[in-house]
Order: sequence, then structure tokens, then C-alpha cells
Amino acid sequence: VYKVTHPYPEYLEEAVYGLTELHRPEVRKTRLVANPGCFPTGGVLALAPAVREGIIEPYVIVDAKTGISGAGRSADVKYSFSELNDNASPYGLNGHRHLPEFDQELTAVSSIGPVKTVFVPHLVPMTRGILSTCYARLTNGATQAQVDEMYREFYRDEPFVPVVPVAPSTKQTWGSNECHVFPVVNQKAGMLVVISALDNLVKGAAGAGVQNMNVMFGLEETAGLELVPVYP
Amino acid sequence: VYKVTHPYPEYLEEAVYGLTELHRPEVRKTRLVANPGCFPTGGVLALAPAVREGIIEPYVIVDAKTGISGAGRSADVKYSFSELNDNASPYGLNGHRHLPEFDQELTAVSSIGPVKTVFVPHLVPMTRGILSTCYARLTNGATQAQVDEMYREFYRDEPFVPVVPVAPSTKQTWGSNECHVFPVVNQKAGMLVVISALDNLVKGAAGAGVQNMNVMFGLEETAGLELVPVYP
Amino acid sequence: VYKVTHPYPEYLEEAVYGLTELHRPEVRKTRLVANPGCFPTGGVLALAPAVREGIIEPYVIVDAKTGISGAGRSADVKYSFSELNDNASPYGLNGHRHLPEFDQELTAVSSIGPVKTVFVPHLVPMTRGILSTCYARLTNGATQAQVDEMYREFYRDEPFVPVVPVAPSTKQTWGSNECHVFPVVNQKAGMLVVISALDNLVKGAAGAGVQNMNVMFGLEETAGLELVPVYP
Amino acid sequence: VYKVTHPYPEYLEEAVYGLTELHRPEVRKTRLVANPGCFPTGGVLALAPAVREGIIEPYVIVDAKTGISGAGRSADVKYSFSELNDNASPYGLNGHRHLPEFDQELTAVSSIGPVKTVFVPHLVPMTRGILSTCYARLTNGATQAQVDEMYREFYRDEPFVPVVPVAPSTKQTWGSNECHVFPVVNQKAGMLVVISALDNLVKGAAGAGVQNMNVMFGLEETAGLELVPVYP
Repeated sequence: VYKVTHPYPEYLEEAVYGLTELHRPEVRKTRLVANPGCFPTGGVLALAPAVREGIIEPYVIVDAKTGISGAGRSADVKYSFSELNDNASPYGLNGHRHLPEFDQELTAVSSIGPVKTVFVPHLVPMTRGILSTCYARLTNGATQAQVDEMYREFYRDEPFVPVVPVAPSTKQTWGSNECHVFPVVNQKAGMLVVISALDNLVKGAAGAGVQNMNVMFGLEETAGLELVPVYP
Repeated sequence: VYKVTHPYPEYLEEAVYGLTELHRPEVRKTRLVANPGCFPTGGVLALAPAVREGIIEPYVIVDAKTGISGAGRSADVKYSFSELNDNASPYGLNGHRHLPEFDQELTAVSSIGPVKTVFVPHLVPMTRGILSTCYARLTNGATQAQVDEMYREFYRDEPFVPVVPVAPSTKQTWGSNECHVFPVVNQKAGMLVVISALDNLVKGAAGAGVQNMNVMFGLEETAGLELVPVYP
Repeated sequence: VYKVTHPYPEYLEEAVYGLTELHRPEVRKTRLVANPGCFPTGGVLALAPAVREGIIEPYVIVDAKTGISGAGRSADVKYSFSELNDNASPYGLNGHRHLPEFDQELTAVSSIGPVKTVFVPHLVPMTRGILSTCYARLTNGATQAQVDEMYREFYRDEPFVPVVPVAPSTKQTWGSNECHVFPVVNQKAGMLVVISALDNLVKGAAGAGVQNMNVMFGLEETAGLELVPVYP
Repeated sequence: VYKVTHPYPEYLEEAVYGLTELHRPEVRKTRLVANPGCFPTGGVLALAPAVREGIIEPYVIVDAKTGISGAGRSADVKYSFSELNDNASPYGLNGHRHLPEFDQELTAVSSIGPVKTVFVPHLVPMTRGILSTCYARLTNGATQAQVDEMYREFYRDEPFVPVVPVAPSTKQTWGSNECHVFPVVNQKAGMLVVISALDNLVKGAAGAGVQNMNVMFGLEETAGLELVPVYP
């Protein structure tokens, strides 16, 4: 996908995919972790409970809105202020390098067979943050109360994934290692909509790395990550 | 939906829904036009060709990203700069007042029976612009080339709805009466994704009103609307 | 100042400095105009009346706040969205290439001898617009009413330089060829403060070029420039 | 200035003006501190060394650029996103309530008699941050090296006021209790320009309060304030 040859392919087998919430036991035992992409972190955490409990069809849509820092710090006219300010645009419509991570990780926890993801990222004019709006058809008529209970149970012991009671926004996670998750049942359309919000530079990047390191080294998982979101 | 009693219900029957591109003959003959909402304009123009030609299932998703001016000019903390800058958030998850317009208008041109829309609008930190990302499952395996041809044909004589060759962005329509439409076939997932971009204060509001007035009064439809998008 | 050798120095003598409001007769007769920089346009229009009437000391400060498009469309990390969003910074503190234009043009209209300018530009996170706040000490105790009258008289016949009755903002000139000027007498400190606002991509660049062309070719000076500022 | 009657005037005499860097001994002994305004903090810290050492005239200009959160969290159309985005504007041109604080505090450390301040604040489209550009005429021809030395000496033991070696920007102080100070000698114009940058919600508000509390209670002055600026 990335169009490079891996320089140390012998390590690939040993490496563990480090979305801590789904792979804590493996992370604990490995000496090599592959940090997840910022987009899959938001999309997979939003959909994993529904996929594992089998309440949706295995075809999911992840519509992501990302701040510009997700693109890194490259000198490119397309990332310049005047091009991006007061502008919203989709990209990667012919396939994004993060797509295989979605399918692989959702399928790994799936009770409904292989999961296929349609993923469309969008640049919106902010520095940080990813808001993911995920859509899937409900197969068994789960109610809002049942889905709420299912999500709260799934993330009950997770220090960084609160299931929030109102629609999240990226600013509520700014500078923190949290990923807020908010499932909504659209009864009329038979659709599950799950929103997640995170800071792509913390939970979507360096924060996740620290979290994995803490687990690997037997430290408190939250060590160095007790960051209060900065607002406004 | 709006929770008010219409003060002149006797006029309702006479009024024509003024999405000019779909209702030009009726607009020409009426003396009363109901201007469409800014969100339905973007979503319906994106999906109408596919719905009329019957290449998708009648269940569609419209994920919209809107600038703040769409909320009007009210004094409310939630529209203040510090709350919205560097922030993205969904709203109206329990139903938006524009939802019935989507279903009504898409159903009116449908060759696949009543259309059901899931509509999720999002506030992103820009002044103007609506980017709508629309999703629907393809039913007959249409190719990208076929869909391109179908869309270009549908909007061939429309002065304000170019079918664009690359992914659109809201800034490309800033200050103009244009709605850019861009259909993408995701063959692997069997999904049609259509992006549309418009300026909510022109094509999504006053511009559409002028366009209808021009048609009603037998003027050149583009009179007063030959606005070049302002960039950057 | 620009550290290049002029390729056609023989034309330099013939060229006229094209701040139309101050050099209309010369522009009318020339076949070569040097378009003014965006910063001097704002600063010189703000201070010219006071300098010509001799009500201030010949030492002036121009503190300018500019949108990012003034930097051109170069691929440079320092102009990227994430560096500039939610950020304000000064630059050119050791001399800006526009500085000689200030001194030359203010001195040309001066009744108080050579004028010396301290010019500090600042990048603020917006796409367009220059707001110039200019400071100079009053020498003869002019009152607010006298200064207002003097400025209105100076720009009485100018189509693009309204002396405005309230503090201007850059957005009020967005997309137009206008430069709003607002003089304030600070009686207590014996200081004249003049604010000007313009769109650096119109009155500060291409619009000024069209204005000069109109004058050179004997056209209506406002031809092609009757642009209404876009708001919001 | 604030047009209210103080409810407990008997406490006024006891209260100490809490710009810690200038009043540490008094803060240590008092039980009542008046927290300084966000604008005076930036302007006074920028100019205090020059005023105390007497190298400038006692007439100073403070041109401040502030993020919107400085206005508080009120519901007012003038603070709404669409009014402020892509906009810069001055305000308080007929006197700002913070003005007396400038004169009082600069005069208190002055070796050149009473100091008179011209203060013009500007709203620029960012959430946090105040950049103050301060101007004063040099009276004794101090060189850049001398001024640098003087400023570094003045703030040598201050944990929160680094004299920085390059032009500061507000984002470099984002979320921290730091006020960056950068003096520049403009030899040609005989002018001292000092730039300061701070986060109006930390050093300009709550952070300053904590700093004073630490001093009053005999705690480590930096306790709870070892905040690393968040970037980008």
C-alpha cells in the first residue's frame, strides 16, 4: 500500500498491531509494536463493539473529517493556509493507505465475517482533530438503550475511550489521549451511526505510542497520559 | 417539522418547490416558490441522476460539512468563535428539519420507489460552504465511465451544476451560484459516492431565489448570477 | 532592496509610481506604471492627508496585520495551515522590502520635510486583508473634527477611499477595491492614530493595476472594479 | 473605569497589584491580590526594563493583537464565528478599561517620570493568544547588544519570562504560563520595538492567579504551572 519495500521483513511477523484497546494481551508480550494509523483508531474504536456483537451488516462507511496536522509538516502548496482556510474537501477517493487497517482490524473482532469498509477522509480547516462518522445497517433491530449498554460494557475498563452521552466534538479531546465514542440508532432508517472524536496528534499518534510502551514495560497504562483536554 | 402553524395555509397548494434544476417547468408557471434548504440542494443535486436512472438502492446517506453562516446570524455562545474554531462536531442526530425535503425530492425523481435518507450535518470551522458526501449501494454494477456519462448528460444544459473532473472543494464555489458534483464508483465495495460542493449563502440561499425569480419572470436564468468564485 | 539587478534599467526613469490617488496626473500620461506594494498602499493612504497638511511630526509608525495570501503561493512550511492557524507573529523586524516605498511616497506629499517610517508587519491567521494601524504625534493640537474634515476633503472625489465613520475591519473590504480610512485623535496623548483596511489581493494588488490601466487608457477609473465587498 | 461601585472599598487599600514579576515582595505579604489584566501583562512586561533603565521617552505605544477568548464567553453576534473569521479589527479606540493599568504600572517602575501609554487592541481570528508590539523612542542611543543584555538581566531569575532570541509568536506560548519578550533596536529610526507573546487564558488570566497564590502561600512559584506550550 505504501509502495516501499520493508527494510526488515523478518520483524514483520513478530510485530503486533498496537490498538491497545483491542490487543492489550499481545502488546504486553511483544517487543515490537506497529502503531495504528490515526484514521483507523477513530473508525475501529467506533465500530468494534457493533461488529463484535454482530448487530450490523459487515459493510461499513467511515466518513472522517481531519485537521491539517494529520498531513504531517511538509512544504506543499496544498497544505498552505490560504488554500485550506475556509475550505473543506475530500481526498483519497481512489483508496487511502489506511484502508487495509480498517478491514483487517474490524474483521479480527468480527462475529459477522469479513468486514468491508468504505473510507472517505476530508480536510477541514483546523489544526488538530479527527471526527469520524460511521454508518452501518442494523440487522436485528437493536434499540438505542441496548446499543448504549453494549458500548458502555465494551469500553467499561478503558481509561481512554469514554462512551459519551451527547454528540462529541474534536475540541473536547484537544491535547488529550481520549477517543470519545457516541453511538446513535436511527430507528426509522434501520441504521447505526457512531461518531468518534480524537486528537490525531495524541491518541492518533504519539499518545498511542506511549500507551503501548506503558503496557509493554508493565507500567501504569495511563502514565504520562493523564492529559486534560485544553478548552477552548 | 418547524413547529409553527403556517400563517397562510391556502397558499401551500399553489407553492412550487424551487430546486430549479428539477422543477423548471413548474417554477416557470407559478407565482409562489418555496426556496429549497441549503442542505437538500447539495444532497439532492448529488443523488438525483443516480436515483432517476435507478442504479442505486433507495437508501442513501448524506454526510454534510457546513460552514457556520448556515446557522444564521444569531447571538448564541455555541456559534461563538472560540467554541467553533479548531473544532468539528455533528448535530441534528435525532432528526434535522431539512430531512423531509431530501426524501420528498429524491422520491419525486425516483425510478426505484420511495427514497429514504440518513442525513447527518456537521459544523466545521469555516464561514461559508457545504460539502456533501453521499453514499448509496450500486445495484447493477455501473462503471465509473457509465456513471460519469449519466451525470454529464443529466446536467448537460444546466448553467450552475458542473460535473467536475476532480474532487471538488467548497472554496472553488465561494461566492458563486454553482453546485459542483463529482460521482465516484467504489467498485470493490459496490458503492456510489457522490460529492457536491456549494456556497450555502448563494446557491444554498439567495442565489437560488434569484435563479427562480429569473425563471418566473422569463428573464435569462443566469441574470445577476454570473458570479466568479472568489479564490483564495 | 530586492537584491536583483533590474533587467531593463532604461525603463526605470520612465516608470510612474502607481498609487493612483496620489499620482493620477502622472499615471494618465505614462506608458509604464510601477504598481505599489500592498503594505504601502494601506499605510500611505492612511497618513498622506496628515503629512501633506503638516499636522504631525515626520516620524510615523505603521503596524500592519496581514492575511497569509500576501506572502504569495509558495510551498513553504512556514506558510502551512498548522503553523499559522491560531497564531500571530511579527516578521521583517530587520527591515521589510516595502519600507523605502513608505518613506518615498510620504515624503513626496510632505509639507514637513522627509518622513521616516517604522514599519512592522504581522502575520495573522486569515486569508486576505491588511489592517494598518498608524501612529504619529500631533504637532498643532488638531481636534477630531478638524482631522475628520481634512481627511474627508482629501479623499472627497476618490471612488475607492471612503473615510469611514466607525472603526474599519478587513472583512468590510473583502473582494473589493476599497481602502477604508479612519483617523482618530487621541487628545490625551497628543497622538494621531489612523486605521486603514483593504483587501491585499484587490486594492493591494490586481485591483490597483486595473485602476491604473483604466486611467492610462482614458477609461472610466472604476471600470471592472465596481465590486461589492463580500460579507460574511 | 469599569463603571461599577466597588462592593468592598475597604479592601482596596490592602490589595496588591499582582503582576508577580514586578511585585513579588508585596504579593508574598498580602492576603488580597488584584490579578492584572491580560493586555497590561503583555505590555508592561515588554516595556518595564526599558522604562526602569530610562533608555526611552516616557511616551509608549502598545499595539496588541488578541484572540477572541479574551472577550469572555458571551453570546453576542459580534463574537460569532462568521463575523470574526478572516477578519481583523481594532476596538476600544476611545479608551480601553485596561489603559490605567499600563500607566500606573509603568510609572511605578519608571526612572523617567510618569509614563503615558497609547494602547490600541485588535481582534484577530484566533482562539487564544496576545501579541503586543510596543514602540518607544530611544533617548540615549542604546545598541541592540546593550538592550539585549539589559532585558536578559532584568528577567534573569524569572521562570516565566524568557527573553527570546528570535521574533516570538503566540502559538509558542499556547497553553503555557510563559510571556516571551523580544526587544529590537531600530537604529535608523531611533526607536525601540519590543514584542511580547503570551496565552491570555494562562499567563493573562488563571495562570497568573495560580502563580500569585503560590507566592502568597510560600509554595514553589512554578507549582502546577510547568505547562509545556502545545504545538501546533
